[in-house]
Amino acid sequence: MKYIKLAVPDDFEPSDTLRLVDYQKDGPEGATSAQVWQPHYTKVLNHGFVGLVDFYGDDSAIVNAARVSYGVGTKKTRSDRGLIRYLMRHLHTTPFEMCDFKFHVKAPIFVFRQWHRHRTFSINEYSARYSEMKDEMYEPTIGNMAPQSSTNRQGRDATILSDTDYIAIMAVVEECFSTSYQGYKHLLGPTEAGTVPPATDGVLRRLQWCQDAAVTAVKESRRRAIESEHPDPYPTEKSLEEAIQAYLDQNGVAQISTDFPGIARELARMVLPVATYSEMYWKGNMHNLFHFLNLRCDSHAQYEIRVYADAILELIRPYVPWAVEAFEDYLQHASRLSRMETEVVQELLQLPSEHIVTRIMKEKGCSKREIDEFIAKFA
Amino acid sequence: MKYIKLAVPDDFEPSDTLRLVDYQKDGPEGATSAQVWQPHYTKVLNHGFVGLVDFYGDDSAIVNAARVSYGVGTKKTRSDRGLIRYLMRHLHTTPFEMCDFKFHVKAPIFVFRQWHRHRTFSINEYSARYSEMKDEMYEPTIGNMAPQSSTNRQGRDATILSDTDYIAIMAVVEECFSTSYQGYKHLLGPTEAGTVPPATDGVLRRLQWCQDAAVTAVKESRRRAIESEHPDPYPTEKSLEEAIQAYLDQNGVAQISTDFPGIARELARMVLPVATYSEMYWKGNMHNLFHFLNLRCDSHAQYEIRVYADAILELIRPYVPWAVEAFEDYLQHASRLSRMETEVVQELLQLPSEHIVTRIMKEKGCSKREIDEFIAKFA
Amino acid sequence: MKYIKLAVPDDFEPSDTLRLVDYQKDGPEGATSAQVWQPHYTKVLNHGFVGLVDFYGDDSAIVNAARVSYGVGTKKTRSDRGLIRYLMRHLHTTPFEMCDFKFHVKAPIFVFRQWHRHRTFSINEYSARYSEMKDEMYEPTIGNMAPQSSTNRQGRDATILSDTDYIAIMAVVEECFSTSYQGYKHLLGPTEAGTVPPATDGVLRRLQWCQDAAVTAVKESRRRAIESEHPDPYPTEKSLEEAIQAYLDQNGVAQISTDFPGIARELARMVLPVATYSEMYWKGNMHNLFHFLNLRCDSHAQYEIRVYADAILELIRPYVPWAVEAFEDYLQHASRLSRMETEVVQELLQLPSEHIVTRIMKEKGCSKREIDEFIAKFA
Amino acid sequence: MKYIKLAVPDDFEPSDTLRLVDYQKDGPEGATSAQVWQPHYTKVLNHGFVGLVDFYGDDSAIVNAARVSYGVGTKKTRSDRGLIRYLMRHLHTTPFEMCDFKFHVKAPIFVFRQWHRHRTFSINEYSARYSEMKDEMYEPTIGNMAPQSSTNRQGRDATILSDTDYIAIMAVVEECFSTSYQGYKHLLGPTEAGTVPPATDGVLRRLQWCQDAAVTAVKESRRRAIESEHPDPYPTEKSLEEAIQAYLDQNGVAQISTDFPGIARELARMVLPVATYSEMYWKGNMHNLFHFLNLRCDSHAQYEIRVYADAILELIRPYVPWAVEAFEDYLQHASRLSRMETEVVQELLQLPSEHIVTRIMKEKGCSKREIDEFIAKFA
Repeated sequence: MKYIKLAVPDDFEPSDTLRLVDYQKDGPEGATSAQVWQPHYTKVLNHGFVGLVDFYGDDSAIVNAARVSYGVGTKKTRSDRGLIRYLMRHLHTTPFEMCDFKFHVKAPIFVFRQWHRHRTFSINEYSARYSEMKDEMYEPTIGNMAPQSSTNRQGRDATILSDTDYIAIMAVVEECFSTSYQGYKHLLGPTEAGTVPPATDGVLRRLQWCQDAAVTAVKESRRRAIESEHPDPYPTEKSLEEAIQAYLDQNGVAQISTDFPGIARELARMVLPVATYSEMYWKGNMHNLFHFLNLRCDSHAQYEIRVYADAILELIRPYVPWAVEAFEDYLQHASRLSRMETEVVQELLQLPSEHIVTRIMKEKGCSKREIDEFIAKFA
Repeated sequence: MKYIKLAVPDDFEPSDTLRLVDYQKDGPEGATSAQVWQPHYTKVLNHGFVGLVDFYGDDSAIVNAARVSYGVGTKKTRSDRGLIRYLMRHLHTTPFEMCDFKFHVKAPIFVFRQWHRHRTFSINEYSARYSEMKDEMYEPTIGNMAPQSSTNRQGRDATILSDTDYIAIMAVVEECFSTSYQGYKHLLGPTEAGTVPPATDGVLRRLQWCQDAAVTAVKESRRRAIESEHPDPYPTEKSLEEAIQAYLDQNGVAQISTDFPGIARELARMVLPVATYSEMYWKGNMHNLFHFLNLRCDSHAQYEIRVYADAILELIRPYVPWAVEAFEDYLQHASRLSRMETEVVQELLQLPSEHIVTRIMKEKGCSKREIDEFIAKFA
Repeated sequence: MKYIKLAVPDDFEPSDTLRLVDYQKDGPEGATSAQVWQPHYTKVLNHGFVGLVDFYGDDSAIVNAARVSYGVGTKKTRSDRGLIRYLMRHLHTTPFEMCDFKFHVKAPIFVFRQWHRHRTFSINEYSARYSEMKDEMYEPTIGNMAPQSSTNRQGRDATILSDTDYIAIMAVVEECFSTSYQGYKHLLGPTEAGTVPPATDGVLRRLQWCQDAAVTAVKESRRRAIESEHPDPYPTEKSLEEAIQAYLDQNGVAQISTDFPGIARELARMVLPVATYSEMYWKGNMHNLFHFLNLRCDSHAQYEIRVYADAILELIRPYVPWAVEAFEDYLQHASRLSRMETEVVQELLQLPSEHIVTRIMKEKGCSKREIDEFIAKFA
Repeated sequence: MKYIKLAVPDDFEPSDTLRLVDYQKDGPEGATSAQVWQPHYTKVLNHGFVGLVDFYGDDSAIVNAARVSYGVGTKKTRSDRGLIRYLMRHLHTTPFEMCDFKFHVKAPIFVFRQWHRHRTFSINEYSARYSEMKDEMYEPTIGNMAPQSSTNRQGRDATILSDTDYIAIMAVVEECFSTSYQGYKHLLGPTEAGTVPPATDGVLRRLQWCQDAAVTAVKESRRRAIESEHPDPYPTEKSLEEAIQAYLDQNGVAQISTDFPGIARELARMVLPVATYSEMYWKGNMHNLFHFLNLRCDSHAQYEIRVYADAILELIRPYVPWAVEAFEDYLQHASRLSRMETEVVQELLQLPSEHIVTRIMKEKGCSKREIDEFIAKFA
């Protein structure tokens, strides 16, 4: 199977079918039905997903780019795969830039924070300035809610929490999420973007909540100012506290005005947790994608981004099978030996004869060229 | 004033002073004290800051790079400034890449989210996987807590909230922040990084809170599953709920085990709001910095990032005064006219004589070359 | 017309035709023939070309990316165009990164030298280390062989050379090209890539040429060392000259050995002029492409790269017509006014009433929003 | 030794000396002379050089950036080096971006062509549009003028040419260079940039040369059109040839007009060989620089760029000694093992006991952590 681009009328739907009526090679009557390519999505985490929404370039695009340096003759399938493996093995990476993939991703903000550190990709993300965020937050399953690793300062342990502990922990998480999202909705005000205001008792409940919280707020605000490591010169902090105190002295409670319009979305979102889901289009070339996958499919990557990376690898595999295979053999599952380690293997290799190495490598399906290259690494 | 690099012994402290003893130009005894350059910091928002911690390249570095294309002769100060203005005016931007600045920034996560979209900079950020986040969150002053703009879908209004509304709003914000940070600390467990566990009554209070929250959690979790736009196929969600329910049916409350170790930092942080402060080193060249400043000093940028951008512009001004001046005149305060608008001005310019334009521009200190260039834009 | 991706058997040829047999909308029998998309090439300069060999993303991809920030409702064609124009006008450039184009380009090396300064594109170029360069060099037509501009230090004049001068100039150019390419072939040696050596008299002629040239070489080499601004400490230069001189003193002439294998391609190419044609695949996203086109379609760009840029703009136009139109109206044919120029227009605008501006802009097809934005630029 | 930035008067010269008069630590009278940092240059090839003209950031800048993630305590020198080695070993590369280096480079154009493919650096290059190129071209020494490698399609052999062959080859090279540069000067015309025209007999000699060359030109031009693989539709080619032929039929010779102004520099340069030297400022961060060095210090890199890369490594070593050491141990002299090779070493490691590996690695100065990491690579 390969993919071609086809010009169709504007009102053509992906569900409309096509037939290769003049394509005589396989069918008796020359009518072979052809599959319109459609985006595929994979569900990830509790509310997330990653979808391959478009791409161009396949294994042959890599080969064509590599061969711009010499005349293309008749090349057998075998040698295309061999060339791709050679390019990957020797880090001739520019031909892999000739494939490009576009994904649609929904993931928690803290995952996007790691994701966006990959600077070579194009991004269009859901805007919390422009639109209201939904009440969708990441909640780890019991299998992923793990204690801090005792050996790795930035990872988690393999221990599974007891059901009881997990329930207690999730109760805390839910409490945080509910409070934050309720707060967010409250800050947005009774009406948003022209929709009808929420039911009156909801507004009243929020008002009551504010009144209760005001006293806490003053105390908390003061505690922060006192405990803060960086004593706070924030100019209006003091007048804020004084205003709150004066008001409370006089009225006992704070009361929101009935015509309060809600504050700007770009501000209201500040109370939302980093577990809140966001969405983006994410697009880049395959060389950079392999770099991303090499780091993020790794066991040292945080679980919550690793599951996205794993899904992406499977999404692209059908379109660039040889490139993915080469990526796995020469990057993802490769080892890097330091100068000293290299010398160790060099010494080890002196013990067994080269024949043993050759035999083992042949058993693993390595080509003559790969065997020579391996031995040369320690010459 | 200009800056030189000086080799000093390793134990030299920035507070140690130096004298230019053999520098005879100014003093009678040739001893002029010289100032060791030190990082400067500007406070921004309630807990934030931005500091210029290092840099290299100044106005003369721009000029030298531009002049690599022809032999450098004796150039007067005036013509250096003129060359920099010419380069900026005509978007010959590569010489501006020859200056590089490194900043130390502390800002809320939602500000960093916008900041990190500038892909050409180098970043080292505080790691919430590795370290515990502090209880420092952004709280807008009354002057900045504004309603959604009615005309701009992604901005805020100029209206100032009443004191009462502000207090009520801040009460909600504090409630969210307190709950989230308490939740975060709870998730981290009674002991963190080998420190002594918190006082017993604190632990007990958290346990009580969990028990109360567990019931809410189950309801909430169910509500989410029902209300969610994307019905949730998350595999373990169901068993989670069932486990919670079963446990509650049997025990009435969830109870955290006394030896609960806390969950991994990389997970616990998920409940923290995007208003939480983080820190980073941020480094890049001046051309890219001007691009950042042009977008982020703009009135359409969110206030909370604009204050950082404004501070950065003032931090670099003393070291590249002509480049900053040219940036302000030709980028920051420039207008872009579309093809159609250009034609409008063209028609308007036919009414008054060129003499008027020339006179007005002379009054504004434009050079002959600038006047010619202006008229040529509409020829 | 729009483009879909279609899965077809591996032996499907682009010349095979397809019919949309079940697509009932337009035809009586539901059989509409569909066009397989094919690369298009445009000839540029004497031996060059630029071809669009693949792409993905069109106007609707831009719109979809921009709309990830809010729910997509039913949008009319008109508003898609309006959104694209709005994005371009306000430099919201990230959605334009969602289209990607791949070109096959053949151009002189000095053109590639300018081209490769655009750092955001992926490149696979013909390798002069790996393969032999062809005898194809750029020769300007009489219309483009112009004198140095007297006003612009880096451009050319509009003057057309006389036929006589053009002939004389081309004679010089041909002399240079012939000598260089003959020299290149000679350096590569009698046999290349296993082919039969050239005819004996050719080799002999080259040998004779060497003998004649040897004397010149020594003199020239000495002259260079003397006249060079940077007196040359090149370690073996002296021994080289001495070797040549000694040899010549003894033998009178240099003579190449009959079994001389030719020198490495990576070295031999050093004598080739920068007018020699090379080839590359060149791929990047549309935002960066517009940046390239804005600089290289400009009248200040060197003619020899401008013709490629002009061709590229026409190659992509059919696939992103609204984006190209917006590019032309808001970037390519836009004007940039400095702060001072802005103030001048501001003063000019006070003379005529706003009504005049409104009327003129309406005549030019500007929307109400554009008129407001124009007036706001000078408020 | 470390470097500080010092503010000095504008007329301070690098040769002026300073004393640390109040710095009491080492000297009896507290007067320690301090060294003003100056750019260093290394000569490379016959006319080239590379100079470190400015930089900022040293080993401690890497460490500080890495430690932004946790509180900085008192760290011993030993652990700084250990941290840098850890970061490099595990490809935590962002802290290495915190150092930045600016170089001044003079190299042949074909070397710059490879150099500029590294897209993350800032470049300001000598402009052949703006300025006249000098008569400086790369001439390989006898040690570097090698035949094509018989095994490597893109490299050269280790064979040394005989003196005789070298002389003959250099004769060809000189012939090409002289012809090209003479042609270039001729195209620029009798007067350049207001200087006095060259002596009359020089002009006459050039005219004579043109007349002789014109006949060749026509023949050559025709031969090119015939032999060219891509039959040439270049619109004016035909009229050019006809014009030349018509002129020659009538006059016998072409004659340049006495007031011929010379053609534009941007065009005239087309005859210059890629061996011509150019200059640039080149600036980028150390992470990207190590990537450049890893590829270009390699034995597979072309010799003519490798000598620059080797020089750069030595230029930066004094300022970032630990980073350079780590680069050499973990990148430059590292080996990469494929999945299959990794399995081979895994099998080999089963033969000797771990004790042997531990002993060998200890002898090489590896830390306990490195030994564990090595064994873990094959677990």
